[in-house]
Amino acid sequence: MKKLLIAAAAIPGLAFATPPIMPPGPPPSPPPLSEMAPGLRDAALSDDLAWNLIEGLTTEVGPRLAGTEAEARARQWAVARLRELGFANVRVEDFPMQVWVRGAETAEIVAPFPQKLAVTALGRSGATPEAGLAAEVVGFRDLAALAAAPDAAVRGRIVYVGHAMMPTQDGSGYGHFGPVRFAGPGIAARKGAAAIVIRSAGTDRDRRNPHTGMTSWPEGVAAIPAGALSNPDADQLERILARGQPVRMRLALTPRWIGERMSGNVVAEVPGTDPSAGVVLIGGHLDSWDLSPGALDNAAGVGITVAAAKRIMDAGRPRRTIRVVLFGAEEVGVIGGAAYFERHRGAGDVVFVSESDFGADRIWRMDASFDDAARPIADRVAALLGPLGVTRGTAPAGAGADLGAWARDGVAAISLRQDGLRYFDFHHTPEDTLDKVDPAQLRQNVAAWTAMLAVVADAPEPIGRVERPRP
Amino acid sequence: MKKLLIAAAAIPGLAFATPPIMPPGPPPSPPPLSEMAPGLRDAALSDDLAWNLIEGLTTEVGPRLAGTEAEARARQWAVARLRELGFANVRVEDFPMQVWVRGAETAEIVAPFPQKLAVTALGRSGATPEAGLAAEVVGFRDLAALAAAPDAAVRGRIVYVGHAMMPTQDGSGYGHFGPVRFAGPGIAARKGAAAIVIRSAGTDRDRRNPHTGMTSWPEGVAAIPAGALSNPDADQLERILARGQPVRMRLALTPRWIGERMSGNVVAEVPGTDPSAGVVLIGGHLDSWDLSPGALDNAAGVGITVAAAKRIMDAGRPRRTIRVVLFGAEEVGVIGGAAYFERHRGAGDVVFVSESDFGADRIWRMDASFDDAARPIADRVAALLGPLGVTRGTAPAGAGADLGAWARDGVAAISLRQDGLRYFDFHHTPEDTLDKVDPAQLRQNVAAWTAMLAVVADAPEPIGRVERPRP
Repeated sequence: MKKLLIAAAAIPGLAFATPPIMPPGPPPSPPPLSEMAPGLRDAALSDDLAWNLIEGLTTEVGPRLAGTEAEARARQWAVARLRELGFANVRVEDFPMQVWVRGAETAEIVAPFPQKLAVTALGRSGATPEAGLAAEVVGFRDLAALAAAPDAAVRGRIVYVGHAMMPTQDGSGYGHFGPVRFAGPGIAARKGAAAIVIRSAGTDRDRRNPHTGMTSWPEGVAAIPAGALSNPDADQLERILARGQPVRMRLALTPRWIGERMSGNVVAEVPGTDPSAGVVLIGGHLDSWDLSPGALDNAAGVGITVAAAKRIMDAGRPRRTIRVVLFGAEEVGVIGGAAYFERHRGAGDVVFVSESDFGADRIWRMDASFDDAARPIADRVAALLGPLGVTRGTAPAGAGADLGAWARDGVAAISLRQDGLRYFDFHHTPEDTLDKVDPAQLRQNVAAWTAMLAVVADAPEPIGRVERPRP
Repeated sequence: MKKLLIAAAAIPGLAFATPPIMPPGPPPSPPPLSEMAPGLRDAALSDDLAWNLIEGLTTEVGPRLAGTEAEARARQWAVARLRELGFANVRVEDFPMQVWVRGAETAEIVAPFPQKLAVTALGRSGATPEAGLAAEVVGFRDLAALAAAPDAAVRGRIVYVGHAMMPTQDGSGYGHFGPVRFAGPGIAARKGAAAIVIRSAGTDRDRRNPHTGMTSWPEGVAAIPAGALSNPDADQLERILARGQPVRMRLALTPRWIGERMSGNVVAEVPGTDPSAGVVLIGGHLDSWDLSPGALDNAAGVGITVAAAKRIMDAGRPRRTIRVVLFGAEEVGVIGGAAYFERHRGAGDVVFVSESDFGADRIWRMDASFDDAARPIADRVAALLGPLGVTRGTAPAGAGADLGAWARDGVAAISLRQDGLRYFDFHHTPEDTLDKVDPAQLRQNVAAWTAMLAVVADAPEPIGRVERPRP
């Protein structure tokens, strides 16, 4: 990749690294951003702003659960940084939410082989008594086996459910195996289980830290205590169950709902020159799970989108306004993304969305959804991303959790897909710390985002609404 | 390595895999063990006993802190398995000990950037009040910096000490950087610190689980609360300290001494034919730290030494008795090893010691300490280990923690040194779980041990006492 970039820089038309000697007189107007895109892309490979933002947010704020004082500090931090960087219209748009907080959490095998297991509560988990509850464990290999089990096999027991999630570059394992977490607790509760512990919805096999994340309860089904075991602990429980003796577990999870609190989205803009050309809406989320400082999920998205927007801002005014939204309360149910969509969809000015919420590893594939007239924009972006090692996919661009509603509503989108092979080793665990961010891959992200923004925000073509491709 | 072994098997004199057709009449006596050694070695490359023992101990007992009910269950488990395997003279030799148990443990930055850090108490740590203690943090890059600091810089504060331990194949990093843990708390206490948290004495950089392990207090210095931060948390604290603002931490560690309890060593033998030839004493330790099932530390040593001894027992009677000791209470101060030495040194029958207590990764180097007359034994062992990829070192063989006293006392020894590059990623953390054991490397250990025992236990040479080489 390095070689290709050096070769590109040697082509005279692309050599923007050396500024021309200024003649006396009024400064010449800069070339259009779209012409500057290759140079902006290459310069971004030396970016340090994204890293500094990620380091700052994870160090100076740390974990920032939605609706808590820590998330409020994250908003203050973001507003201060965005103003300092020179963004326009920096503001917080707040919204109320119900807040769930973690309590104590322990699990231990009482019989036949007494020992502790590493457990964490899933978001929206019900609570056990303070001293925990003890019951026999009934194990299921996967969600289908639990769903097929008669209620009598489950009633009054602690359900264990496994799965076989493996790493995939496109992250599709999460959608495929995630229902163990999203839906498993509801299924167990409906069958009368006393509690449920799942194998963490993650791909690490040797890290003794469980993965949290939201679960959900069907209408009319009361929440039961629901936790995740680390993968080594799930292996251990499966070995214990395989001995064939009755297995008794004591589980204590004491989360609680603390009532309504305020969360908020932080908004900042790079003003465009043509208000009629629409708004380019990008972002990531500011909140994290409580277990880690959320370096990958999603300080990375904050750093990448802000750094790329800042590079455009410093290079010249784009045709379209670039609006960066750092969403609140994503982890706990995309509350900030939904609030933003509800509040602003009526304005009808958003013509393009793109989101960064899948860590900091390199972008490997680009998918685009544009109407026919705007498709050349995607072609130009793809051409610029080739030297960064990015292929072009044929899937529709869905944006992410926070901006997905816009794409589903017909707004044009590009997905700059990040490599997901490591992502679910750390996702929603205590281990989502700064050391997981690879600075070189992070810079490639900033370069790709900068190139995309230069082209899309400045494109002369109108960007219209997209007919969603039929599945 | 596979290729080499196949080649060796093709040499007629070494082809023991196919038994000869039995002529009628009394069965011929088996060849001497030393002649069988190459075949025994190669057969051990298919061993599954070591794995089964490790899987069994870690699953059916789990964590087994010295002096607790769990360690007593480990002894019962070991006695039952050793008898089942056919060992002779299986017994427990018990001894009393004072028991320290972990309590609650939390650390959080109170200011300037409130957030929790992952901490665990070091063995023999003092306790904070239940609600913890809050104090300003003073950070030191390493132990030398702490030692050089004036008392006034430390008094009443929470001391943080870092280090730069890196992975080494020979494990020497632990000796070099371990004093941060062994001695750091005592130095901080003597200077009047309120408490101390160290960077974990480990080599992982991205696992959010701290490393425990014993610390010590100088005569007359009262214990203070002493914990270890995971390496990512130590990085985080260093970043926070680097911001230059006063850093305040609240630390709660509530371990306690629960009084005298019994521990014990489990002993088993493969009886030899010549009582005058002395005893070959081998083993590992049965106890583990409380945070994990101790797969590497040291279920592995139990599995490797028992499996190798069982292979000798099944092949024929060796000249010397092989005694396997599975020590109690190693982690908390080599109490079992010291008790065994005190109790049995007077018998004068131990002529050779070797210990397995460094995980389950492959043996890469052999060091031997023999008197001149017995040196050919070491040469024969080294020749047998070459095809397993084992080099020959020139360092004295020191045995390990439990049997080191015998070697220091002049008993001949061989060190089968295991690869330590991964070992301190997991050592004394919650992550020392079964998944860390690589079955192929484990089998190489059993093969090397089997070859060594076949040669040493059956050697015709007398094995005398060793003059220790001068350093």
